[in-house]
Amino acid sequence: MRRADLAGTFVFAFQGALAAIAGHLDLFGDLVLAFATALGGGVIRDVLMGDLPPSALRDWAYPTTAFVAGALVFALEGHAAVPRHLLLTLDAAGLSLFAVAGTQKALEARIHPLSAVLLGTITAVGGGTIRDVLLTQVPAILRVDVYATAALLGALVLVVARRAGAPPAVAALCGGVACFALRMAAIANHWQLPGSSA
Amino acid sequence: MRRADLAGTFVFAFQGALAAIAGHLDLFGDLVLAFATALGGGVIRDVLMGDLPPSALRDWAYPTTAFVAGALVFALEGHAAVPRHLLLTLDAAGLSLFAVAGTQKALEARIHPLSAVLLGTITAVGGGTIRDVLLTQVPAILRVDVYATAALLGALVLVVARRAGAPPAVAALCGGVACFALRMAAIANHWQLPGSSA
Amino acid sequence: MRRADLAGTFVFAFQGALAAIAGHLDLFGDLVLAFATALGGGVIRDVLMGDLPPSALRDWAYPTTAFVAGALVFALEGHAAVPRHLLLTLDAAGLSLFAVAGTQKALEARIHPLSAVLLGTITAVGGGTIRDVLLTQVPAILRVDVYATAALLGALVLVVARRAGAPPAVAALCGGVACFALRMAAIANHWQLPGSSA
Repeated sequence: MRRADLAGTFVFAFQGALAAIAGHLDLFGDLVLAFATALGGGVIRDVLMGDLPPSALRDWAYPTTAFVAGALVFALEGHAAVPRHLLLTLDAAGLSLFAVAGTQKALEARIHPLSAVLLGTITAVGGGTIRDVLLTQVPAILRVDVYATAALLGALVLVVARRAGAPPAVAALCGGVACFALRMAAIANHWQLPGSSA
Repeated sequence: MRRADLAGTFVFAFQGALAAIAGHLDLFGDLVLAFATALGGGVIRDVLMGDLPPSALRDWAYPTTAFVAGALVFALEGHAAVPRHLLLTLDAAGLSLFAVAGTQKALEARIHPLSAVLLGTITAVGGGTIRDVLLTQVPAILRVDVYATAALLGALVLVVARRAGAPPAVAALCGGVACFALRMAAIANHWQLPGSSA
Repeated sequence: MRRADLAGTFVFAFQGALAAIAGHLDLFGDLVLAFATALGGGVIRDVLMGDLPPSALRDWAYPTTAFVAGALVFALEGHAAVPRHLLLTLDAAGLSLFAVAGTQKALEARIHPLSAVLLGTITAVGGGTIRDVLLTQVPAILRVDVYATAALLGALVLVVARRAGAPPAVAALCGGVACFALRMAAIANHWQLPGSSA
């Protein structure tokens, strides 16, 4: 589980650093956005759960992973490009991992199942929201297609599966697959939620 | 008291959803803004008080109310309009309720009375501030006329009344009436604080 | 120590209020920005450490200092000007004080030394970040020269000195001097981090 979490951290930090480069930030801004994008969702979840200090400040593997990804993007800028489709796929995987991990952590703390769904979704999309606010952009999750909705679905599937008696690992797998499948289908088909002007 | 809180939640969620529609957000963004506007102030208060998880995640009547208001606005968009004056009046009522409820909660936790005034004001205006930040607008409370000041007055009146020996219910009523009266008078007379360029 | 903290609070509040004036905010916005700029970093640190309510809400000398500075700026606007170089020097001093105070508080709570470095940096630059977000500007720390980096260096020097066996007061002095010296040298020489477009 921890290895999967670190992989998700790396992917999200990578994306945060790319956004920093696109926003013409310096090296420090690059590292801050890598950190905030990768770990901001989990930090908000831990603050709301009262599990303080947040795990991102207790286990240094997480910040280290985020900073390495941020430094890598900064060093490679202009020398290499990541194919857009690979990036979207990795991001969908990170989204699924974080939605599932956040929901599970909330359930284990005996938080109300519906609140666990919210906390799982926040874990998955909170970091990207902080990144966008720092770059003074309306958060992508409020504007762009089926993204947070996929995280919400994954969290919901996990909770329903647990309630139906599925073992935790099976429920997590179901939730992760649901989130990943919806997100990839939305990308492939350019799905939008009703009302979007994007 | 709880019924009044839920009414305030509904009004604030309604306004958040209207702002989402005006900002061309999709259904998910509409629900997020309804939730954040209605419950963001109370969540910040509970985080600062260390009362975690925040009450908005423990009592599901609150999120449910916010989501219903958000969905209603989304469904009715273009089919019905709420008179502007009614909306301002309801919002002033919500402001008063939240300022009073937040101050009382802080006092009951034996927090310093002046900090209780700040926490009451944050409860009343925190949600709208989050809404504006997410829409990348300078928060209305920092720009627009006598709004946060009314919440501050209500919180202050409550604290002074309690110190003067008034029973909690009477002090709450005094605070709520003071906030509501100042806000409505400011709307009617277009009062501005000194220095405002709005 | 407390006297130094209050001096730092005053300087940062002063700067927040100047930003409010420049942004055409009213008196209430001026006071909010003074408070948020001066005390926001410490509040974030205390929330992340789980030390709640935050010290800014427990010891009223802090908010009072921030509000007095904010009111002073508002009253004097157009009547007096602070020389830019003096302001930058005072700000560098405030940055050093907050970085050192934040790091020390985290170390005393037995938080991981590297997390203490992060928390010290957040204490120093968190308030300015909130100020910029409220004014819908990309935070200066993400764009502008060697500022957060100086806070980070000061926090790091303090932690390394403590690990090397230096008494707390000596370690704090070393950290503060390192931060102040780097910041002043950066101002004098217009140093930028690589990648900055500012």
